[in-house]
Amino acid sequence: MSIYFKHMAIIGVGLIGGSLSRVCKEKNLTGKITGFGRNESNLKKGVELGVIDSYSLDLKDAVRDADIVLLATPVRAMVDIVKMMIPHLKGGTIVTDVGSVKGYLVDKIEELLPKDISFVGGHPIAGTERSGVESSFLTLFKDSNCILTPTEKTNGEALKKIEELWHTAGAKVILMDAKDHDRILAAISHLPHLVAYALVNTIGDIDEDDNLLSLAGGGFKDFTRIASSDPVMWRDICLLNKDNLLEIISQFQGSIERLKRYIKKEKGTKLEDEFNKANRIRNSNNLMC
Amino acid sequence: MSIYFKHMAIIGVGLIGGSLSRVCKEKNLTGKITGFGRNESNLKKGVELGVIDSYSLDLKDAVRDADIVLLATPVRAMVDIVKMMIPHLKGGTIVTDVGSVKGYLVDKIEELLPKDISFVGGHPIAGTERSGVESSFLTLFKDSNCILTPTEKTNGEALKKIEELWHTAGAKVILMDAKDHDRILAAISHLPHLVAYALVNTIGDIDEDDNLLSLAGGGFKDFTRIASSDPVMWRDICLLNKDNLLEIISQFQGSIERLKRYIKKEKGTKLEDEFNKANRIRNSNNLMC
Repeated sequence: MSIYFKHMAIIGVGLIGGSLSRVCKEKNLTGKITGFGRNESNLKKGVELGVIDSYSLDLKDAVRDADIVLLATPVRAMVDIVKMMIPHLKGGTIVTDVGSVKGYLVDKIEELLPKDISFVGGHPIAGTERSGVESSFLTLFKDSNCILTPTEKTNGEALKKIEELWHTAGAKVILMDAKDHDRILAAISHLPHLVAYALVNTIGDIDEDDNLLSLAGGGFKDFTRIASSDPVMWRDICLLNKDNLLEIISQFQGSIERLKRYIKKEKGTKLEDEFNKANRIRNSNNLMC
Repeated sequence: MSIYFKHMAIIGVGLIGGSLSRVCKEKNLTGKITGFGRNESNLKKGVELGVIDSYSLDLKDAVRDADIVLLATPVRAMVDIVKMMIPHLKGGTIVTDVGSVKGYLVDKIEELLPKDISFVGGHPIAGTERSGVESSFLTLFKDSNCILTPTEKTNGEALKKIEELWHTAGAKVILMDAKDHDRILAAISHLPHLVAYALVNTIGDIDEDDNLLSLAGGGFKDFTRIASSDPVMWRDICLLNKDNLLEIISQFQGSIERLKRYIKKEKGTKLEDEFNKANRIRNSNNLMC
C-alpha cells in the first residue's frame, strides 16, 4: 500500500515528531509538513534543519487543511490540543499520536472527535534520552516496535494508513488493546524510568561534595542514561498511567525488600537464586545486546 | 618506572584476570603467566587463546616462584585462597587483588600474610556483563578508573609497581581508604546492580506467558544489561559489603516511596522536581555518553 498526505501537521516537533517528519520527507510521503509548538526557537530550528517545511504558533493555522495531524507533545497536553483544534479540522482528516500512555488518551480523544475525523492511537517504542528537534534523526524507528491501539470505533482505512506510515519508518507494527498497552508499558518502560530517576537521586543525595559519580563504571552510565529523559514527558506519563504504575512499583518494592532481607540475614544461596533468575529472564527474552 | 615480573600467577582467569593478563603479555611485563582456577576447560581455553602461558589445577604449583599473584576470583573465595597459598609463596612476592569489596578483604589478607609478602588491595572499575576468559580483551581497562587501597602496612615499592601495572593497562589510578571505597562503591555500583536484578525479576514475575520484554526499548536493554552479570560474584559482593549496602538500599527505598506517594497524590510539580534533579545530577557528573 502506498500512502501520501498532501498536508501533515505535527504538533510538537521534538525527538519523536521530528524523526517521523524526517521519514515523511525522505520517503516523499507528504506534500508539506507544518510544525506547531510553544517554543518558537525549536520550530525555527526545525525549519532550518529541513525537518519541517514551515511552522505556526497558531494551532488553527497549523492544522488547517491537514490530511493528517500527528500529536507528539507530552501526553497530558494532547486532550486540550484536540479540543482546540477540532473546529479547524476538515472532514476525513486522520489524527494520530505517539503518546506513551494510551487508555485515557484513546477514550478521551475518541469521545471528543466528530464522526468524520478518524483517530488512531499509537506509541512508537523508540527514543533516546535527548529531546528537542535537533536530537531527531531519520533512523530512530528502524527495527523498533510501534504499538497501535485501534478500538471498535477506529476507521479501518485510517488504521491501514498509519500502519503503513510506521512500516515506512522501519518499525514493526503491533496491534494491541490500549489497556493492555498501559499495563505492559508500566512494567517495561515506566517503572524502569522511575527507578533510574530514584537511583540517580539517591546517589546525588549522598554525593554533595564528592563527585562520586565520576568514578562510576560503564554499567552505571548505561543504567542511568534514561534518568536524563524529559521531566515533563515523564511527569505526564506517571500521572496518566497512575494505577498500573502504582501496582508495578509495589511489586518492585517487594522485590527490593526481599533482596535486602537476604543480605541482612546473609542468605547467600537465596541471593544467588535471585540473580540467576534475572540472568535467565534477561537472556531468554532476546535482550542480549 | 618500568616493571617486570618474571612469573605472574593469576588466580581466577575470567574477564578481569584474563584482560590484565593480556595487557601483561602485550606489554612484555612478565616472563610467564600461570593461571589457576577450578574450571579446567576455562583454563585450557585461556592457554588456547594465548591469554595465559600455562595453568595448574593445584594452587601450590601455580604460585610457586611467583613474583606477583593476582587474585581475580569472586571476593568471598579470596581469603581461603590466601590461606592455602601462604606456605608456597616465596619472600618478596607481591599479592594484589581486583575484588569489588575492599575493607573486609584488606583487613583479613594483611592479617594473614607474613611480613615479607606485600599486599596491595585493588579494584579496577571496569567490566562488562560477560564472564569467563573468552570475554577478556586487551583494552578493557583503557580510560577506566582503578582504585588502590593501601594501608599504613603497605610496602611503598610494591604499591608503586601495582600503580604502574594499572597505568600500563590504561587505567587512571586513584588511592583511597578501603572503607571509603566500600561506602562509595555500595552507592555507585553495588546498589545499581541490585536494582537491575530486582527490576528484571519484577517484570519476569508478571511476564510468564507474554514475553513482554521483547517489546522493550533500548533504554530498558541498557538499563538491565548489568542484570546479566555473574550471580556468584554479586552474591559475594552483597554479603561482604552488607552494612554499606543495607544503608544505601534503605535510602533508595525512601526515594522510590517518595515518587510513589507523589504519583498516588498526583503531585505533578513534585514529580517534575524529582526528575529535574536527576537530570541535573547526571549531567553535572560527566556521565553523558
